[in-house]
Amino acid sequence: MTEFDLIQRFFAAQPVARDDVVVGIGDDAAVLAPPAGQQLVVTTDNLVEGVHFAPETDPAAVGHKALAVNLSDLAAMGAEPAWFLLNLTLPRPDAAWLEKFCAGLFALASAHGVQLVGGNTARGPLNISIEAHGFVPEGEALRRDGARPGDSIYVTGELGDAALVLRHRLGTHPLSGSDFDAIRERLERPTPRVREGRLLRRFASSAIDVSDGLAADLGHVLEASGVGALLVRDRLPLSPTYRAHLAEAGWDPALAGGDDYELCFTVPARHDAEFTRWQPKFGCRVTCVGEIVSGPGLQIVDAAGNRYEPQRSGHDHFVASP
Amino acid sequence: MTEFDLIQRFFAAQPVARDDVVVGIGDDAAVLAPPAGQQLVVTTDNLVEGVHFAPETDPAAVGHKALAVNLSDLAAMGAEPAWFLLNLTLPRPDAAWLEKFCAGLFALASAHGVQLVGGNTARGPLNISIEAHGFVPEGEALRRDGARPGDSIYVTGELGDAALVLRHRLGTHPLSGSDFDAIRERLERPTPRVREGRLLRRFASSAIDVSDGLAADLGHVLEASGVGALLVRDRLPLSPTYRAHLAEAGWDPALAGGDDYELCFTVPARHDAEFTRWQPKFGCRVTCVGEIVSGPGLQIVDAAGNRYEPQRSGHDHFVASP
Repeated sequence: MTEFDLIQRFFAAQPVARDDVVVGIGDDAAVLAPPAGQQLVVTTDNLVEGVHFAPETDPAAVGHKALAVNLSDLAAMGAEPAWFLLNLTLPRPDAAWLEKFCAGLFALASAHGVQLVGGNTARGPLNISIEAHGFVPEGEALRRDGARPGDSIYVTGELGDAALVLRHRLGTHPLSGSDFDAIRERLERPTPRVREGRLLRRFASSAIDVSDGLAADLGHVLEASGVGALLVRDRLPLSPTYRAHLAEAGWDPALAGGDDYELCFTVPARHDAEFTRWQPKFGCRVTCVGEIVSGPGLQIVDAAGNRYEPQRSGHDHFVASP
Repeated sequence: MTEFDLIQRFFAAQPVARDDVVVGIGDDAAVLAPPAGQQLVVTTDNLVEGVHFAPETDPAAVGHKALAVNLSDLAAMGAEPAWFLLNLTLPRPDAAWLEKFCAGLFALASAHGVQLVGGNTARGPLNISIEAHGFVPEGEALRRDGARPGDSIYVTGELGDAALVLRHRLGTHPLSGSDFDAIRERLERPTPRVREGRLLRRFASSAIDVSDGLAADLGHVLEASGVGALLVRDRLPLSPTYRAHLAEAGWDPALAGGDDYELCFTVPARHDAEFTRWQPKFGCRVTCVGEIVSGPGLQIVDAAGNRYEPQRSGHDHFVASP
């Protein structure tokens, strides 16, 4: 199979065809028509075999997640996703792998109406780099620097399941078959909170997606906003499976595990009513986990109000993992 | 060095600061303000260590080329470059390598006024993926499908030097030290023809950048346009160094070598006067190498008018090289 055949066979025909794509796949570059009055939101993220996923991972899950992590970044800006590009480095043109990969990739693309408009294939160690584009009305992007003292801190969904699945995989915290089945998708097929991100534009003062662990990602918001936060550990939303393992696993997978792809956002008191009005539109639970304060840094307290320190603060590619 | 330190140290401060960047590096995604009345042109391309460049390559050349190949794609659409994103997969945070890499990357970015607006770093085998954005006035992008019978075919600059340098590196066609020095930059630091691409919008009917070899890339234009071409082999523009090696190396490095990053474009006879008027603005030579014909396929003839077939038709990542 040549590179050209590969692109034709797997990527040229695809489920989404948007009116704002003037030239899609097959020229030197894509030509796109951004809507008037909107700003463009762009992000890039990649998955590396052996680092972000194990070689035996279902290729459909890899395809899903490669796009999901980018849509999650757009969601955290409050953007409506539109287009993406794929830079795929493959050891060999493996048709069986590509077929499954594309099935996972394009299923998620269809669900969000995003179109693959360009890309590149090269030979080398498996590395999937995606760049996603979306829009926000001018001046309405949700940034990290808008949190103010008194704002409440919320998270979508549930935290820590992805980290538990990873611990199971690494053999450090084995799960039963049914427990593993109940939460494995949280690592392999995270749900980008795209709809929730767009709703947040109405009332949130800041937002970030939780990819490196809540403590680390909230820390980025605090630093950008020049504020501190008080986080109540025991308020963190946990799945029933996690709760059953809480005594053994502790709170750190939820506080600092990473790979959650939930949104963490802040809401000023003056927008509480607006938030309450729109909350039924959310496709997931939303939990208040603390409050922004004026003093610097992140303070985590347990249910009794005692200070709590997670053993690690978050995921970093260039720091050795515990 | 943490991932955060790495981004701060090498990528947060940079030479270009554009007014149309609303939010740059440091949030979940960049927020950009495309100019009204323009279309967005986006492309992505990557460099993989051991595939696109040897491990011992000067990191500054790697940084230059990673951006250059993307700017070349924008040039082939007639676009004015504006922003880029960098997805960098590194085996380790090597400060000495990164410093040189950034020097090469940002020198080219400055020369073209393009700003790094986002990116990602991950651990893994060295892979540099860049996505570049530019603008064209609505409807003016240079596409591959506009060539018509009777159009003249041109190429910018000179062809084949990069392929000769690669042959030297592979030991299949050794060059003397001075010959190598004279043309090594053509492989390591290709010049994207950005200014030329923008000028082409005034008179070209189609354009493509020559990355996989002239025969292969012109072939894409012919297929997209539904036409054929007659290419005169002996008209191909060669450097003095190449010409000195022509008897031994033959024409194939120029016809099918790849990595030239010159533009191949077609000009209808009715635009000849316009072309002549603007040609002095080009920063490089421009050579007519043939003509578009109605019959299908690419026919290459030598100086005597005899049919000539290159031994290989172009570069393909998934086909074994000779």
